[in-house]
Amino acid sequence: MWREIREQPDVLRRLLLDGREAIDRVAAAIRDYAPRFAVLVARGTSDHAAAYGKYLLETRLGVPASLAAPSTTTLYHSRPRLDRVLYIAISQSGESPDVVLPTRQAAGSGALTVAITNQNQSPLSAVAAHTLQIMAGEEKAVAATKSYTASLLTLFLLIEAVAGRDAREANDLPQRCTQLLDRQEALEQIALRYRDAEQILITSRGYNEATAREAALKLVEGARIPAVGFSGADLLHGPIAMVERGFPVIAFIPPEAGGRAMGSVVESLLARAVDLLLLGPQHGPAGTTTVLLPDMRPEYLSPVLAIVPFQILALSLGRLRGYDPDRPAGLAKVTRTL
Amino acid sequence: MWREIREQPDVLRRLLLDGREAIDRVAAAIRDYAPRFAVLVARGTSDHAAAYGKYLLETRLGVPASLAAPSTTTLYHSRPRLDRVLYIAISQSGESPDVVLPTRQAAGSGALTVAITNQNQSPLSAVAAHTLQIMAGEEKAVAATKSYTASLLTLFLLIEAVAGRDAREANDLPQRCTQLLDRQEALEQIALRYRDAEQILITSRGYNEATAREAALKLVEGARIPAVGFSGADLLHGPIAMVERGFPVIAFIPPEAGGRAMGSVVESLLARAVDLLLLGPQHGPAGTTTVLLPDMRPEYLSPVLAIVPFQILALSLGRLRGYDPDRPAGLAKVTRTL
Repeated sequence: MWREIREQPDVLRRLLLDGREAIDRVAAAIRDYAPRFAVLVARGTSDHAAAYGKYLLETRLGVPASLAAPSTTTLYHSRPRLDRVLYIAISQSGESPDVVLPTRQAAGSGALTVAITNQNQSPLSAVAAHTLQIMAGEEKAVAATKSYTASLLTLFLLIEAVAGRDAREANDLPQRCTQLLDRQEALEQIALRYRDAEQILITSRGYNEATAREAALKLVEGARIPAVGFSGADLLHGPIAMVERGFPVIAFIPPEAGGRAMGSVVESLLARAVDLLLLGPQHGPAGTTTVLLPDMRPEYLSPVLAIVPFQILALSLGRLRGYDPDRPAGLAKVTRTL
Repeated sequence: MWREIREQPDVLRRLLLDGREAIDRVAAAIRDYAPRFAVLVARGTSDHAAAYGKYLLETRLGVPASLAAPSTTTLYHSRPRLDRVLYIAISQSGESPDVVLPTRQAAGSGALTVAITNQNQSPLSAVAAHTLQIMAGEEKAVAATKSYTASLLTLFLLIEAVAGRDAREANDLPQRCTQLLDRQEALEQIALRYRDAEQILITSRGYNEATAREAALKLVEGARIPAVGFSGADLLHGPIAMVERGFPVIAFIPPEAGGRAMGSVVESLLARAVDLLLLGPQHGPAGTTTVLLPDMRPEYLSPVLAIVPFQILALSLGRLRGYDPDRPAGLAKVTRTL
């Protein structure tokens, strides 16, 4: 897991250099198709990438997007009309039947299907009209890291290409990712706070709701801590009642609008006297601990970087707690569900 | 909260008797509009109703449906084209700005907007083209109960009416809801198991993913237990690593396809030796405790009933733990977020 976390700058660089041609070709096909709507299908970590993709499609391309509920196909055999629908399937392995089957059916129902996967030869790429390789190299750890950031960047480059923009703001991501890896020591220190934690809540907003959910999953997989991630807005609509004095909460403060919107979330958390750790570009109010992170603007690209500190934290914490983060108990690298 | 839980048979009966005319009128408008796609916007409990609505729209009407991410509008000011989009906003109070603003904008972007709310005179009904009153009567408890089941039934009746079906299978819901309320004593007994629980995981599948998520929120609000709800399929793709020997897990076993699909989820949970409680129509395998519930077929209607035992459990557990379930610490009846 640690090796794969450290590979991320190289993976991102490879995508930026060698991935553009395929991405531009698929983007041209999408422009020709002129989708009115998008559906993203995925499970687990890839579903968090899909959540980021939904935001990008709506805000950067103006195309309303839905996260598929695979059961409507696999359990209930619904067959919605999907002409003018861009159907994006995301799966590292390209193998889970509940991603493959809905994609096959979507292709037969008029959708334009695009697979985003780490495997060119997979059941998923066999059923999708187009396949984009995330070029992450073999991923061995059960807890996905480099395949996640590679999926995010692929989605970003693809959507910008469809919109006819050059995505140049992505060019320094590899270097900025390296800067984040350099925060390893600070994050290992922080991990000590959570050695005996029985649960952790993680929150952020907007584009980085995906970060909160994926960060929680990393803590679950890497350190076997029951952790959940919520958008800060959703949190205020009920779930915040689960946290009281001393409850460990980690808030990622995004740049720009999402960061400003986190203000009231942080206030509400402090009013409950939780044990609050902020990850962000500046120190928080009294009563909080902050891990200062480099500037992650623009916000719409920040999820590619924002997950990295959480990956390091999950790994450090797993080691502290005596687990082997490469082999979370009872999980396999490829999960097959229907 | 208890009074409102017990009112549910009457609320459902009122909707079935007095709500149909308005529902049929709105259904006719939707048929005329011939939507290609649907978007549902909501927060908190209403967002769980929206998750059920998404399943119904896709499986019963063949219309692909998306759960809105309000931030794409409120934080990032995206303005997707929404012609031929049915836009359903669900809010008990009709007041949260992050439901009202996206609905107003959707109305201005070509969508057909329908508000499902307990308030005829609300900011939400003022911006929506059509309003359906869920007729639940004033809801005072912060933890929503009757407004949830009334929202589910309204969605079901509406979607069946659009599809040109008479929804007669809903007619005995009030009586079946009363039967469930009669399980109060058994559920109070079960609550004793969780008096000192530090966390609970709740799972189900398909239409009843909404039940799992709403049940978790009831436990959070009513009994201040950190609880999360997952679809059984999502659970197997990672989060199951958070549970180990003795971890309290409650699985709702739906009828029909969803129930069959829960088989492998229950197996995986038993392999981890969790403390597993099943709620369902028959006894589970060795090593599980079961609360037998009346038959809830058809599956697509079961969420209207399935939440009731969890509401009772949350209330009983809140009392056992010495909380006032009517006033979850730090939550207001109406939450306003942007």
